Amino acid sequence: MPGIPPGRYAYLGPRGTFCEAALRTMPGADRLDPLPCISVSDAHDAVRAGEAAGAVVPLENSVEGSVAETLDGLATGDPLHIVREVLLPVTFTLLARPGTSLDDVKTVTTMPHAEAQVRGWLRAHVPAARFVPAPSTADGARMVAAGEYDAAVAAPIAGEHYRLSALAEDIADNAGAVTRFVLVRQPAAPPPPSNADRTTVIAFIRDDHPGALLELLTEFAVRGVNLTRIESRPTGVGLGRYYFSIDAEGHIASARVAETLAALRRECADVRFLGSYPRADGVAATERPGTADVDFTDAHAWVEALRRGN
Amino acid sequence: MPGIPPGRYAYLGPRGTFCEAALRTMPGADRLDPLPCISVSDAHDAVRAGEAAGAVVPLENSVEGSVAETLDGLATGDPLHIVREVLLPVTFTLLARPGTSLDDVKTVTTMPHAEAQVRGWLRAHVPAARFVPAPSTADGARMVAAGEYDAAVAAPIAGEHYRLSALAEDIADNAGAVTRFVLVRQPAAPPPPSNADRTTVIAFIRDDHPGALLELLTEFAVRGVNLTRIESRPTGVGLGRYYFSIDAEGHIASARVAETLAALRRECADVRFLGSYPRADGVAATERPGTADVDFTDAHAWVEALRRGN
Amino acid sequence: MPGIPPGRYAYLGPRGTFCEAALRTMPGADRLDPLPCISVSDAHDAVRAGEAAGAVVPLENSVEGSVAETLDGLATGDPLHIVREVLLPVTFTLLARPGTSLDDVKTVTTMPHAEAQVRGWLRAHVPAARFVPAPSTADGARMVAAGEYDAAVAAPIAGEHYRLSALAEDIADNAGAVTRFVLVRQPAAPPPPSNADRTTVIAFIRDDHPGALLELLTEFAVRGVNLTRIESRPTGVGLGRYYFSIDAEGHIASARVAETLAALRRECADVRFLGSYPRADGVAATERPGTADVDFTDAHAWVEALRRGN
Amino acid sequence: MPGIPPGRYAYLGPRGTFCEAALRTMPGADRLDPLPCISVSDAHDAVRAGEAAGAVVPLENSVEGSVAETLDGLATGDPLHIVREVLLPVTFTLLARPGTSLDDVKTVTTMPHAEAQVRGWLRAHVPAARFVPAPSTADGARMVAAGEYDAAVAAPIAGEHYRLSALAEDIADNAGAVTRFVLVRQPAAPPPPSNADRTTVIAFIRDDHPGALLELLTEFAVRGVNLTRIESRPTGVGLGRYYFSIDAEGHIASARVAETLAALRRECADVRFLGSYPRADGVAATERPGTADVDFTDAHAWVEALRRGN
Repeated sequence: MPGIPPGRYAYLGPRGTFCEAALRTMPGADRLDPLPCISVSDAHDAVRAGEAAGAVVPLENSVEGSVAETLDGLATGDPLHIVREVLLPVTFTLLARPGTSLDDVKTVTTMPHAEAQVRGWLRAHVPAARFVPAPSTADGARMVAAGEYDAAVAAPIAGEHYRLSALAEDIADNAGAVTRFVLVRQPAAPPPPSNADRTTVIAFIRDDHPGALLELLTEFAVRGVNLTRIESRPTGVGLGRYYFSIDAEGHIASARVAETLAALRRECADVRFLGSYPRADGVAATERPGTADVDFTDAHAWVEALRRGN
Repeated sequence: MPGIPPGRYAYLGPRGTFCEAALRTMPGADRLDPLPCISVSDAHDAVRAGEAAGAVVPLENSVEGSVAETLDGLATGDPLHIVREVLLPVTFTLLARPGTSLDDVKTVTTMPHAEAQVRGWLRAHVPAARFVPAPSTADGARMVAAGEYDAAVAAPIAGEHYRLSALAEDIADNAGAVTRFVLVRQPAAPPPPSNADRTTVIAFIRDDHPGALLELLTEFAVRGVNLTRIESRPTGVGLGRYYFSIDAEGHIASARVAETLAALRRECADVRFLGSYPRADGVAATERPGTADVDFTDAHAWVEALRRGN
Repeated sequence: MPGIPPGRYAYLGPRGTFCEAALRTMPGADRLDPLPCISVSDAHDAVRAGEAAGAVVPLENSVEGSVAETLDGLATGDPLHIVREVLLPVTFTLLARPGTSLDDVKTVTTMPHAEAQVRGWLRAHVPAARFVPAPSTADGARMVAAGEYDAAVAAPIAGEHYRLSALAEDIADNAGAVTRFVLVRQPAAPPPPSNADRTTVIAFIRDDHPGALLELLTEFAVRGVNLTRIESRPTGVGLGRYYFSIDAEGHIASARVAETLAALRRECADVRFLGSYPRADGVAATERPGTADVDFTDAHAWVEALRRGN
Repeated sequence: MPGIPPGRYAYLGPRGTFCEAALRTMPGADRLDPLPCISVSDAHDAVRAGEAAGAVVPLENSVEGSVAETLDGLATGDPLHIVREVLLPVTFTLLARPGTSLDDVKTVTTMPHAEAQVRGWLRAHVPAARFVPAPSTADGARMVAAGEYDAAVAAPIAGEHYRLSALAEDIADNAGAVTRFVLVRQPAAPPPPSNADRTTVIAFIRDDHPGALLELLTEFAVRGVNLTRIESRPTGVGLGRYYFSIDAEGHIASARVAETLAALRRECADVRFLGSYPRADGVAATERPGTADVDFTDAHAWVEALRRGN
């Protein structure tokens, strides 16, 4: 996978978050200028305003599910396109100032989502410690470094930034958790198709009739385009009104994905294309017979010849 | 509806059939050179060989159903296209030589399909008469004129040809029967779209898996193309193997029909386009929101712009 | 397969038809009292009137397709149930009076459907012979025996009955044609399920809205019941109004077929059950996971327990 | 709607949350013994352990979407059933100690989700104030009462509990936000059907084949059961593996919902029934022709009669 172009890249900060760790895994990351932001919205807006070439934001986690702020932020406001994704194992570490032992830990801080994922470990190993919520895992580490609390649950990278020691590593109750981050930038031609691509799209159903979702899914199925994720999110105008955030196999450069997107465009109240980009897991799209590009080209030529009468 | 071009036109003969009556309803029919054929296949072949400019053949009847010889003849052999259809009320007349009365009728002849449609009338009015099958209703009239039998059940036009008198008119048990005839010619550009068109197509399913017909129908439904007729016919290679003969609303010139046909072309083992032509009943196609030509054009332009990045 | 009970059995006559041959293949046929009828309708009516214990009628042919008179006859009038099916290879023989040679054949008679299946052979071997339609293949043989015509195309059994000689055997252009005959009787409990059953049903769609057929097929598909045949037939009340004649895998005794039939009963304007009976080809129904009887029983018990709160 | 039985009822605390406000709206709430819990999980567990007769927890919000902790908590662990729902308008109030003016506000605390919904108002009216995250809106109010921060964004009820004054009311940027709370209890027979019920169910798809969700939705659609909400949630065993949380119209006491649930039970790897209960909005379920209880009863009786042969 080619490196990302040099420039300033926003991410969900502060320094030391998993999001920064995700940014650092990208080829060419050592030449980048990282810009920590206090919210996903701020990271999005930095790209929209041209203050950053791109932004790395979390999209979903294998335990906690989708990140609403990211989904909603990409569904509204000026358009942004996903051009790359990163899968990052979530390895929680218990960080403290050097010299602290487990017995010294009376207060533990981290963001509530992280606390939920290590609760069993904390009960078993520091049962007497009080939990104090922090805005982010990295903020928790920062506050521990500042002496406000005794220990923080955070990414290993936070230890480096804030010069903290690891009291324990890999403390997640549910081993194997993974977070999927995406790199977004201003709209432009998507990266070229690879063997294994993903297309992300937002669909607002025209009217909320029964079966509307079934019809939406049928547009994909009939053209042999498999979904890998579908989320409903409220549109904000009342309970029972949702939009759908969808990941599908394949690239807009392929005929079957293109025809599917065009069908959504025709059938939905609104559709927002959020990008075609290489899958981090490298899983190639399945191709049902009759749905290769050459099949579409041949079929189109056949119809055109019939229309002309030859 | 414009007249049909002058020339020789084949039809299912002999002279005096309903098929000839259908041909005569077409604008410009008085300038045509009619060519009676002894079978639907012969009528088809006359067009294929260039001996006739077109052929009028029966496709389906509201009581007897589809005409297998026509469906199978269009599904195989050199391609032919339907360019026009005619709906003809089936009005059976009991014809006899002048001077014959009902009491004189000891034998009645007609084709078996016709006999089935007047059986009740015959039992009520000429209960003692013996039925003798004829190859066609017009052949029956011809044999009555030749003195072989006493009466024939045939189209009124057969009375004119064979100088027979009507002993009784409109004797069908099931009033209101209608036969749909089609005019076929060699493949060429279809007639231009009207407000109310029909498209006929033959589909051979790729493999006979469960659900294949459901998938076929879904290709139409997902693009808002309604069917008006679907017939299964054996492919001839064994019980349980069928092809489908389909009439759909709309014209191949429309984007939704074109995309549907292209989908069939991709998904089926074989597809044969049999024409787009004006409906005789003038019923306009329904147009589901999102399926007008402009919707397809806009959606295609949207996808192209996304691919290019602008 | 057990023998059929003794009694009088109607069939599409006269003596010597393929239909009689089909009746004779049934176990116990030697103890039966065959009743030739001049039409499928008459055979049906003989059963309805109690004059026959059952009737053997042709349902479909692998070349000519379904037999409209049988389908329509079972779809209307007092109900009849199919309890058995027979697949009979169609082996046409050219029959003549003893002493006749091919060169003597100036006229050939048979029913038109049969003529269509041997036309190529006749053109090649008796090109000068004139074809005269007969009401049935057996009638043709009878007329040849009576000296009216020179040769008849018929089933071998017709030669036995009318003491004719075979001038040529197996003269069908399309080798391998098969006709499927069914044995119908008055409604009663179906034969017990075997490993390989078929269920036949007639469905009149409630209203002719677009997608009605798709919905009908979905009722089968969603419960894992595969179709083996679906025919549309006109209801007789005008072009564009059809009913569907359907063969499905499995037996009404199975939960998945029963629930499917109940769904049709709820959703359709009218449904007529035409029987569950062993398949002549012995092909076992496929069983999708989750659709065995035990799955239905368990699921029903689960729902009942939830309703009761335990 | 009948009152809820007396007893101890858990809710997401501390005292003063919207969740407590929801509990208080229920008929008979004045006779209840409220039990504030520090998490949704603790509220669930109090019911499971028999320490509370029921628990009121938030399920979804019209702006923020579903509450993952509630969905996941009901999807796993010992079963709980929803028996009632409450729709509560989200009216945020800015609370401070008596005597505080807007100009005095240097710090504002609340839970992050709440801050996201009033961010515009805060920027406009207290632009200089620093935001400090709190574990819940009520905790924020408690900390303001304790003098830790200057103002809290919380429910009006929190002002009563902590003797705070409202500096401003209805400060949500997006007016009209609504949260849906549910009352859960240990499994038992559901409340009797009303005119307007909802059924909630959790489905784990058997295998993650393409089209599995389409099949799931078809089970509902084919039986005329409309969905009002569908959420995907990670199963926790890796990205790309989801379960579905579904709200459907109607009650398990109805035949169409019962047959749908039974179908899910047969087809899915696992299904968890979460209850049938009255809808707070009183919207009656639509009833497609052929899906009333009497239709199911009649159809079942018809099939049974066919099976028995009468």
